[in-house]
Amino acid sequence: MTKLIIGGAQIGGIQKDETREEVVARMIALMDAAHDKGVQFLAYPEMTLTTFFPRFYVEDRAEFDHWFETEMPNPAVQPLFDKAREYGMGFTFGYCELTPEGLHYNTSVIVSPEGEIVLKYRKTHLPGHAEYESERTHQHLEKRYFLPGDTGFNVVKNQGVIMGMSICNDRRWPESWRVLGLQGVQLVAIGYNTPSQNNLSSEEGIERRMYHHELSVCAGAYQNSTYAVAVAKCGMEDGNHMFAGSIIVDPDGFVVAKAEGEGDELIVHEADLAKCDFGKSTVFNFAAHRRVEHYGLIATQTGVKLPD
Amino acid sequence: MTKLIIGGAQIGGIQKDETREEVVARMIALMDAAHDKGVQFLAYPEMTLTTFFPRFYVEDRAEFDHWFETEMPNPAVQPLFDKAREYGMGFTFGYCELTPEGLHYNTSVIVSPEGEIVLKYRKTHLPGHAEYESERTHQHLEKRYFLPGDTGFNVVKNQGVIMGMSICNDRRWPESWRVLGLQGVQLVAIGYNTPSQNNLSSEEGIERRMYHHELSVCAGAYQNSTYAVAVAKCGMEDGNHMFAGSIIVDPDGFVVAKAEGEGDELIVHEADLAKCDFGKSTVFNFAAHRRVEHYGLIATQTGVKLPD
Repeated sequence: MTKLIIGGAQIGGIQKDETREEVVARMIALMDAAHDKGVQFLAYPEMTLTTFFPRFYVEDRAEFDHWFETEMPNPAVQPLFDKAREYGMGFTFGYCELTPEGLHYNTSVIVSPEGEIVLKYRKTHLPGHAEYESERTHQHLEKRYFLPGDTGFNVVKNQGVIMGMSICNDRRWPESWRVLGLQGVQLVAIGYNTPSQNNLSSEEGIERRMYHHELSVCAGAYQNSTYAVAVAKCGMEDGNHMFAGSIIVDPDGFVVAKAEGEGDELIVHEADLAKCDFGKSTVFNFAAHRRVEHYGLIATQTGVKLPD
Repeated sequence: MTKLIIGGAQIGGIQKDETREEVVARMIALMDAAHDKGVQFLAYPEMTLTTFFPRFYVEDRAEFDHWFETEMPNPAVQPLFDKAREYGMGFTFGYCELTPEGLHYNTSVIVSPEGEIVLKYRKTHLPGHAEYESERTHQHLEKRYFLPGDTGFNVVKNQGVIMGMSICNDRRWPESWRVLGLQGVQLVAIGYNTPSQNNLSSEEGIERRMYHHELSVCAGAYQNSTYAVAVAKCGMEDGNHMFAGSIIVDPDGFVVAKAEGEGDELIVHEADLAKCDFGKSTVFNFAAHRRVEHYGLIATQTGVKLPD
């Protein structure tokens, strides 16, 4: 029976002028605390290394290339990889990736306890918009600064556990979960940066948005009989508030650990991977119950087509 | 701006020896009450006309053909159709369908205020099993008595609203919701008969199962920006308990009406269909955000394939 002590390393706001080295020091402090608690796999947020810059508009996108990493690991994050290897701890974190071909992605990786990147994922569902939109209370320009990911949703067996990733908005899309579920996923790691206010609706504040976050993660975990760890970068960042609410969810869809504050904070849960088996072999036994002959639209039709 | 007063007509247990006529009388009593409250569209449960007989095993399946309807409407349910037409009320209900070709389906229909069946749906995701299984606390033989539906998930514009259906276990499958969502659905009507105890797990009782029910319906409604009305047949039936918890959920994924008891009971909510537009045009603007190039497995691979 495989058990895995999972940690979620929530990170409070990172301001514009904070360096990678300062952030990595905060990440290592959380890793130290996680090691003290026996954590074997630690999940950090989306874009862990920098402020959430898609809230800012620049006409020349290249001006923001300094927020991107051109290699991974690189000297600034090497101490994190070294510390994890010392601890024998696997981990996952998100960062902005600039490829040798000049392509920009919102990326996350899973790193084995030996310090090897064993899976890379590039965010599929980019929210927001590509041009400045004055009717919004704040900008959310992910579609300006990133390309939609080209990796799709893959899994890797790491530390004896079938793991996959989603990033932020991906968690709201059941497709993300199901593609991982069809590969037998047992742990989905999700990082997010989620503004506390909907930039197009004054009615949609932190309470409603937190509900949607938990609803999406709990449903995805339940419907695929998998653990999930969803970790925030949160609190005040350059004058903008992002909600916290990092959670670990069990394969029955229940929250089993939750962050209390809006700063750097560790949450921990000992996962019993055998608990994935019950759902996968009964109510969500895909082989027994799924009817792909009726799912065609999902994979062939992008937008809505109204009835005649 | 389209508004529609939606009702959910929860039905308490129907015992083996109750006749269709007795059940239809109970349905009409709820329809009368709904009319008094201005309800324009009323949703009844799955298999509204009979007890939930898949809990019983018979070797010769034909012995249970008497639970099936060979035509719809038929003399026993005609008074319901007549009353609805008198009230100008649309409605939906589930029943067991035996076709002229001898095929058995778990079926539901949407009936217009003019008394016409405008959409038929046959349940896609049949839970349970086909043979007697002694390790279960009770049997759940839907796979014995029904074929998987051949209709798929379609919508119809009825009373100015784009409506679709799911039945019971379908609500746990995000595929059901998404196929309807891709057709612009604004109201999903779901009937269910859900035993209060998992027949393979003594740990999974009514509280956990009610949570899964609400989680599935709220997530489906939120992720497709649609209203949903999910209606139980519930309480004690032939010595077996099924949970109640009929709900109406808004396009933001919040429960806006909920049954209090476990008997015949009406729930009502005035839906403002314009509320579907916000999600459909922002966070769940499918045309802007979905990436079908990464969804292929969903529609091509039925069961799990583990990584090498």
